[in-house]
Amino acid sequence: MKEPSSKLEFDGKRINISSDQAKSVITEIFQNIGCDENTATIVAEHLVDTSLCGMESHGVMRTLQYAEQMQTGYLNPRAQPWLDISDSRNEFVDGDGGIGIPAMQMAYERGMIRSEESGISSISVLNTGHTGRLGAFAEAAAEKGFLTLCFGGGNHKNWKQVAPHGGSRAILPTNPWCIGMPGGELGPVVVDFATSKIAGGWIYAARSAGARLPDDCLIDRDGNPTNDPEDYFNGGAILPAGGHKGYSLALIGELVAEALLGPTRTECNWLVITFDTTNLRSCSQVEKAAEEVLEELRNCPPAPGFERVEIPGERERSHKQISNGWVAVPERTWQQICDLHENVTETHHPLV
Amino acid sequence: MKEPSSKLEFDGKRINISSDQAKSVITEIFQNIGCDENTATIVAEHLVDTSLCGMESHGVMRTLQYAEQMQTGYLNPRAQPWLDISDSRNEFVDGDGGIGIPAMQMAYERGMIRSEESGISSISVLNTGHTGRLGAFAEAAAEKGFLTLCFGGGNHKNWKQVAPHGGSRAILPTNPWCIGMPGGELGPVVVDFATSKIAGGWIYAARSAGARLPDDCLIDRDGNPTNDPEDYFNGGAILPAGGHKGYSLALIGELVAEALLGPTRTECNWLVITFDTTNLRSCSQVEKAAEEVLEELRNCPPAPGFERVEIPGERERSHKQISNGWVAVPERTWQQICDLHENVTETHHPLV
Repeated sequence: MKEPSSKLEFDGKRINISSDQAKSVITEIFQNIGCDENTATIVAEHLVDTSLCGMESHGVMRTLQYAEQMQTGYLNPRAQPWLDISDSRNEFVDGDGGIGIPAMQMAYERGMIRSEESGISSISVLNTGHTGRLGAFAEAAAEKGFLTLCFGGGNHKNWKQVAPHGGSRAILPTNPWCIGMPGGELGPVVVDFATSKIAGGWIYAARSAGARLPDDCLIDRDGNPTNDPEDYFNGGAILPAGGHKGYSLALIGELVAEALLGPTRTECNWLVITFDTTNLRSCSQVEKAAEEVLEELRNCPPAPGFERVEIPGERERSHKQISNGWVAVPERTWQQICDLHENVTETHHPLV
Repeated sequence: MKEPSSKLEFDGKRINISSDQAKSVITEIFQNIGCDENTATIVAEHLVDTSLCGMESHGVMRTLQYAEQMQTGYLNPRAQPWLDISDSRNEFVDGDGGIGIPAMQMAYERGMIRSEESGISSISVLNTGHTGRLGAFAEAAAEKGFLTLCFGGGNHKNWKQVAPHGGSRAILPTNPWCIGMPGGELGPVVVDFATSKIAGGWIYAARSAGARLPDDCLIDRDGNPTNDPEDYFNGGAILPAGGHKGYSLALIGELVAEALLGPTRTECNWLVITFDTTNLRSCSQVEKAAEEVLEELRNCPPAPGFERVEIPGERERSHKQISNGWVAVPERTWQQICDLHENVTETHHPLV
């Protein structure tokens, strides 16, 4: 059974926008909504980079969601994430109720510094909105020789999306796990997945397109299998990935976020664990040994229905290379972003 | 779709053995093969406890496998695992080529001490044979307030069992992940799973019983789905759990074991990460907040085909309570253990 593609499929046209133009427009949007220049730039660069990597669901289209969340007061546009290092055993980043991308970047950066000193570190990340593509932080850290694990979630009272294994009601969020590990000649191995069979965005996309979802992804309100996205909105649920295994990982994330770091105030809480691999072996030693394993996997004959065996993280890097600095945005999405840009620019400069 | 039960199903009779008797027989077996009293006792207690928890695949039946591995020289019966703390950023337990249970216990114990000091710790475990039921170590640590993660594996050149997602050949081992987290009123949440759809032992059990395996667990040598265990032995493979997700977790384990800690000398290498939750919140605070999440899950109406939603770790504790100190061992297995006991006792005391 082939997994659903991670790309949003739709019938409309796409428009090619240079990454510089996209960054400039998105930065201005966030600045005009109230973000300072640093935050606006970090978020814009993250979203454009994610689109260049082909992760459209977490890319420039999120501008619209984040902007709305700031405009409605769900997120604090003026948030200034800050790092608390007063207790060396319990360092944390407080996201100040804002978008989580700058907070997560701060946590990974601090995690690397601390693990260089002590081998391994943990930084909690509290009080943030959406944290973007976690794999981007994991990849950047792995390129410098750090193994990272990031998990968490929380706030299941507001985000009931996924049924526990064996259950017929949505109780948990899609709580992702992200792991980055220095890899072979082609770069880090980046694992970044929702613990549910499919991400929530898929259901909205299928509903909007009038499409049905693949088998074994959804149950209806009675716990029976269904392919109809409407059943989800009528009390159904997404199934956990790998049955009890995905359920267990989601539950650990929820307990970490709520029982250990919680209660969640904004959207999610996270734990970022960073391990400095260079304390054990040099980067070139790790690369050489990793390449042996990875090469064998790349050379594995594909199963029927597959083109090849992929190494997690390579698809995104390859997409970025091919993109060559141009983002292919659905025309309608780009128009909405431009409308928003115009709208907030006018709001910001009412007398111009 | 219901997951296959973790219990070994067979047609023969079972015999009830008191845990004291089982421990005594198994301890004597390992002592007579060459283990010192401490190692023999730790291994026997671990195996009996695992059987009491209902994890038969990792319980007293493993006595036969471990003994054979020691008798053939695959494992060193006289192994004395030792802890190297000379580099505080890179502490490790060397298993000395023996069975991995005492080495893993040492690593978890050291990990707790170190994380009490610094919040989080990592201990590598090198050069060991089978490490028993990882969940037992995670549960003991979680009862004391520690969140632990253990992953690794390695040695895929000798343990080609699982196909990568999208591949048609077995390349990776079943590399498990184990996570323990302090839980609610009923105790810790213990996650301990193979990253493959089913554990390797299932295939041997099905072959021996002439049974077919559930759908979506196996592929044949051409990568096509099969239910026939013979296809596995003819060049087939187990599928990863959750498609690319289980594959990714297995790959991280393999890279940690081989590229970071390897090359593997005995069977596996591991990383044990320990986080002291009591640095953040008291055990009773964590318990209270965890119980809120867990209670909602326990109360979730079951999906068709399921009796209830389970909390990972509770089934084993409940089984242990019901066992009340008695292990129900398949009669034939117990007979084999007794035969082995007699055999090694004679060998050890040839003149008696």
